[in-house]
Amino acid sequence: MGTSLNHIRIVLVEPAGALNIGSIARVMKNMGLTQLVIVNPQCEVRGEEATRMAVHAIDLLLTAQIVPDLPTALQGCTRVIATTARNRAIPTPLETPRQALPWLVESTQPTALLFGREDSGLTNAELKYAGRYLSIPVGSEYSSLNLAQAVAVCAYELQLCASEIAPDLPNVQLESDVAPVELLEGYYQQLEILLLEIGYLFPHTAAHRMEKLRRIYNRAQLSHNEVALLRGILRQVNWAIETAQLTSNRNVD
Amino acid sequence: MGTSLNHIRIVLVEPAGALNIGSIARVMKNMGLTQLVIVNPQCEVRGEEATRMAVHAIDLLLTAQIVPDLPTALQGCTRVIATTARNRAIPTPLETPRQALPWLVESTQPTALLFGREDSGLTNAELKYAGRYLSIPVGSEYSSLNLAQAVAVCAYELQLCASEIAPDLPNVQLESDVAPVELLEGYYQQLEILLLEIGYLFPHTAAHRMEKLRRIYNRAQLSHNEVALLRGILRQVNWAIETAQLTSNRNVD
Repeated sequence: MGTSLNHIRIVLVEPAGALNIGSIARVMKNMGLTQLVIVNPQCEVRGEEATRMAVHAIDLLLTAQIVPDLPTALQGCTRVIATTARNRAIPTPLETPRQALPWLVESTQPTALLFGREDSGLTNAELKYAGRYLSIPVGSEYSSLNLAQAVAVCAYELQLCASEIAPDLPNVQLESDVAPVELLEGYYQQLEILLLEIGYLFPHTAAHRMEKLRRIYNRAQLSHNEVALLRGILRQVNWAIETAQLTSNRNVD
Repeated sequence: MGTSLNHIRIVLVEPAGALNIGSIARVMKNMGLTQLVIVNPQCEVRGEEATRMAVHAIDLLLTAQIVPDLPTALQGCTRVIATTARNRAIPTPLETPRQALPWLVESTQPTALLFGREDSGLTNAELKYAGRYLSIPVGSEYSSLNLAQAVAVCAYELQLCASEIAPDLPNVQLESDVAPVELLEGYYQQLEILLLEIGYLFPHTAAHRMEKLRRIYNRAQLSHNEVALLRGILRQVNWAIETAQLTSNRNVD
């Protein structure tokens, strides 16, 4: 039967179409995906329209997690892929579903696949949470896929991938140690505060530079220990600065 | 840019959901498919619901061909693939979209991909027109895909395949000679009449046996000349029988 997909969250950010949500629940159930997480929905998740399209997947609508923001949706996730139609703010290469999605399936830890709003996709701030980016290839200048269709294509690829991967995976112990998103966020915040403090970042350049830094670490797949190590370094830098300030003040006195 | 998909017809048999038709038009346009053929629709093809889901693909709804029966939809097609969720009546192996669909893309002649009714799929009689059969792999016991989602997955695979295939194809001359479906149908009818006449087939066994025969010829990808040859044989058999009957009658006189 291949690998399970139970560890993969399908995360919808502010969807506005109830028909889409119902269709997504259905195709998720078809393809063996069980975890639907909806960030700040702009329509009824369990109303008549969603229920009608879900058909025999109403259980997925009922067990869907509804959360106020993306960080909450990603709690505990070690690998995050964002879907996007455009390559605006993303300097890293866009991958196809077939290239990117095995990364989620191979994991034994919680992972997430992000889908943005029907009209405007994911914001730059939201894209930053991802370690990889995928775009579904289209064959015409009309590139705007329906949200439910985009999820269907990805769910299909996830299922194909799962059926090809043997359930016994190498690197399980290694990967179980990868730090989840919220731990990385704590680190990024600490880093940004420090870099602003020390004048490496300025308020008007901080966002752009932090993005580049985040990309490095996201790609690196940091372990818990490594995050602790990096945070330890930051604390140490802080301490050194504070100590230096104290010394300097004392010298002035 | 790869190969064009303009020669591939997406044929929907008696669809009943206008939302599905609109979604299908949209994803077809996304993926560079241009030919939508609808057999005896059970809902409004260009009404409010279909139009709303089509968004910027309303042109595909307007140019969609609406036909009364499947043979009309398949006129001129040399390769036909039927989609099915079940393997009931099909003894030939079911293929995945990835295995089967290159066969349509590689062709330079009209080809067709058939999708059945939302609730009951394609009938055994309709399945018989196909040379190959595909089933979208699912990952759970809930195997019934939404029609528009099934088309989306296949359209995505067709587009992937087209982008991988160079526009210059071998076998073009060879394949341009493959007999279209309606020519084969003429042959099958002639064959069945003859086989009934000669007592090889009986009315209660004819359908089953003819199916097996059709499968052989569909797989063989007959050329125009080969169909003419086979029909010539049938005519000759007929002539021989009639002549024998005349001779026999004369003897009795």
